[in-house]
Amino acid sequence: MVMDDNELRTVWWEKETLCLIDQCSLPDQHVIVRCHTLDDVARAIKTMQVRGAPAIGCTAAYGMALAVQRSAATDRDALLTELRQAKTILDAQRPTAVNLVWATSRMLEQAQTFAGEDLAALRARLLNEAHAVLAEDLAMCHAIGDHGASLIPSRGCVLTHCNAGGLATAGYGTALAPIRTAYSQGRSIHVYVDETRPFLQGARLTAWELHQAGIPQTLITDNMAGHLMRRGDIDCVIVGADRIVANGDVANKIGTYSLAVLAQAHQLPFYVAAPSTTIDLSLANGDQIPIEERAADEVTHLRGRRIAPEGVAAAHPAFDVTPHPLITAIITEQGVIVPPFAEGLRQLVIYHI
Amino acid sequence: MVMDDNELRTVWWEKETLCLIDQCSLPDQHVIVRCHTLDDVARAIKTMQVRGAPAIGCTAAYGMALAVQRSAATDRDALLTELRQAKTILDAQRPTAVNLVWATSRMLEQAQTFAGEDLAALRARLLNEAHAVLAEDLAMCHAIGDHGASLIPSRGCVLTHCNAGGLATAGYGTALAPIRTAYSQGRSIHVYVDETRPFLQGARLTAWELHQAGIPQTLITDNMAGHLMRRGDIDCVIVGADRIVANGDVANKIGTYSLAVLAQAHQLPFYVAAPSTTIDLSLANGDQIPIEERAADEVTHLRGRRIAPEGVAAAHPAFDVTPHPLITAIITEQGVIVPPFAEGLRQLVIYHI
Repeated sequence: MVMDDNELRTVWWEKETLCLIDQCSLPDQHVIVRCHTLDDVARAIKTMQVRGAPAIGCTAAYGMALAVQRSAATDRDALLTELRQAKTILDAQRPTAVNLVWATSRMLEQAQTFAGEDLAALRARLLNEAHAVLAEDLAMCHAIGDHGASLIPSRGCVLTHCNAGGLATAGYGTALAPIRTAYSQGRSIHVYVDETRPFLQGARLTAWELHQAGIPQTLITDNMAGHLMRRGDIDCVIVGADRIVANGDVANKIGTYSLAVLAQAHQLPFYVAAPSTTIDLSLANGDQIPIEERAADEVTHLRGRRIAPEGVAAAHPAFDVTPHPLITAIITEQGVIVPPFAEGLRQLVIYHI
Repeated sequence: MVMDDNELRTVWWEKETLCLIDQCSLPDQHVIVRCHTLDDVARAIKTMQVRGAPAIGCTAAYGMALAVQRSAATDRDALLTELRQAKTILDAQRPTAVNLVWATSRMLEQAQTFAGEDLAALRARLLNEAHAVLAEDLAMCHAIGDHGASLIPSRGCVLTHCNAGGLATAGYGTALAPIRTAYSQGRSIHVYVDETRPFLQGARLTAWELHQAGIPQTLITDNMAGHLMRRGDIDCVIVGADRIVANGDVANKIGTYSLAVLAQAHQLPFYVAAPSTTIDLSLANGDQIPIEERAADEVTHLRGRRIAPEGVAAAHPAFDVTPHPLITAIITEQGVIVPPFAEGLRQLVIYHI
């Protein structure tokens, strides 16, 4: 899992199988999930064994490749029909992140464009396309690191929420990329990590990967950020994104919006770091983003143990929307976008397509 | 525990022993802690088997009474010396809540005032004084309910943090008192309960006591409040207090300050409900309040189970300070204080003394 370049890998292809680090088992156990079929991939996305918008995108690309690899179809039309069904299945697993749909659409388009090839060639082409999605994701993360590192204040006390790290991508991360790059440049960095209830992606995943990388950190509960900001302990906030829409509004893990309000109240920069694949210009503003409502027992239980009394109802919106006026800048692989965001986002997507 | 008047009791005297509901065991188990000695009481306060500023005050009063009951002293001077030592021990257990010091001071003053009595009379007098502290606390909670109920908006979607309920007092609660009273008047009430990491007082205690009382509720993680406010789901916020200082700044459970900032950003009323014993005019502003820093493993573990990787550092400020400009009103047993708070708080304390 740790490659020659000493980087964390979250999603990789090995012996005709898609391999994932099981993010539900971290940090207690380091388990590798092996997906042999489309159903395996759909389940891994649904149960959050793989999570984080870019990592979900890479996984879904391989899910499409696996659907084709394992298909019994003997003609192209049947294969394309199966691939469309596979896309429908995968897209339904998580409604908020746009990278999922972006990746499955890219794979389907590839299949349609080269539908004239024989089946063996088409299978190889789709697997290569999934490899390309993965390689591009890694390159994008490093570019985000390069563009974002200069935004880290000199003292470098950075607050992050959830996990927008190597585990949320093919590796290296989005929100953690500028932190990793600044740290590798020898800069003084200290990361405050929101534990991020209910799934504890901060405590379990971000803390784990910063610890692996040797980057100094302090874990906090989600309700401590305001107190630390008021005390002057935090210099800026960096988070990832699950979807960025045309006006610059951002959907991200529940709790992001509260942090953005707190950052503004304390006049702290609030940065969003995400690859351009996270941008969805089809939606005008954040109110149009579907917010996934997950099961209440993920709130009433903690890692399988009940914490609330029997019979107590709980809400579980998995994401929230941060309106663009609260965002200082959006860090992408192509550069840093500052307000007004609409024009910058449009140019980025034109370039990307 | 459930009395004739169908009210929760948190702290009570039975068979020469102080009884407490063990708040570390709820909601899994309903365990009664029996304190026979001063040391038992100090331990119960330290380990948060009893918590909540008013409940700690009542408990500490009985701790002083127990010190006298169990004392082997044969003369008054020796007894008073022991009582002063008992006060020092009790006061050191939790530094932020002022009710603890208020209660132990009251008990010591009582002993000093009546030092001329024989030892048996003095023992009886101090036990009666502890009973009086308890009875006054219950009466204060009901008065807070009466004064605060009219502030609950007609639709009545109220957010609360931590547990400022019956379990945080002798019974009935402070922040939950206006909710209980409004509900008993037949008003439409729905309570959003912050789970309140790291100790989960919301999920374990507030959810439990609202469920017992049949008051509709929805449990949320601490990072959801901003999202719900933005969606229009919350009408006001009510919290308790561990200390209210001369200018109206309030120390309360960590996370309270963030909620106050969020409430202001959404133009929602933010109410603090507390008995006048919580007011400390000796401090000019909230920056002078000592903030208890608790053990990091209370953050890295959850109910005994490790949630963060080994070797990860964590911060654990147990309280934060909400500056008075963020507070709409302070609800006390003597009435509702509105800004500017300084004059109202001073008059209240004069009246109380």
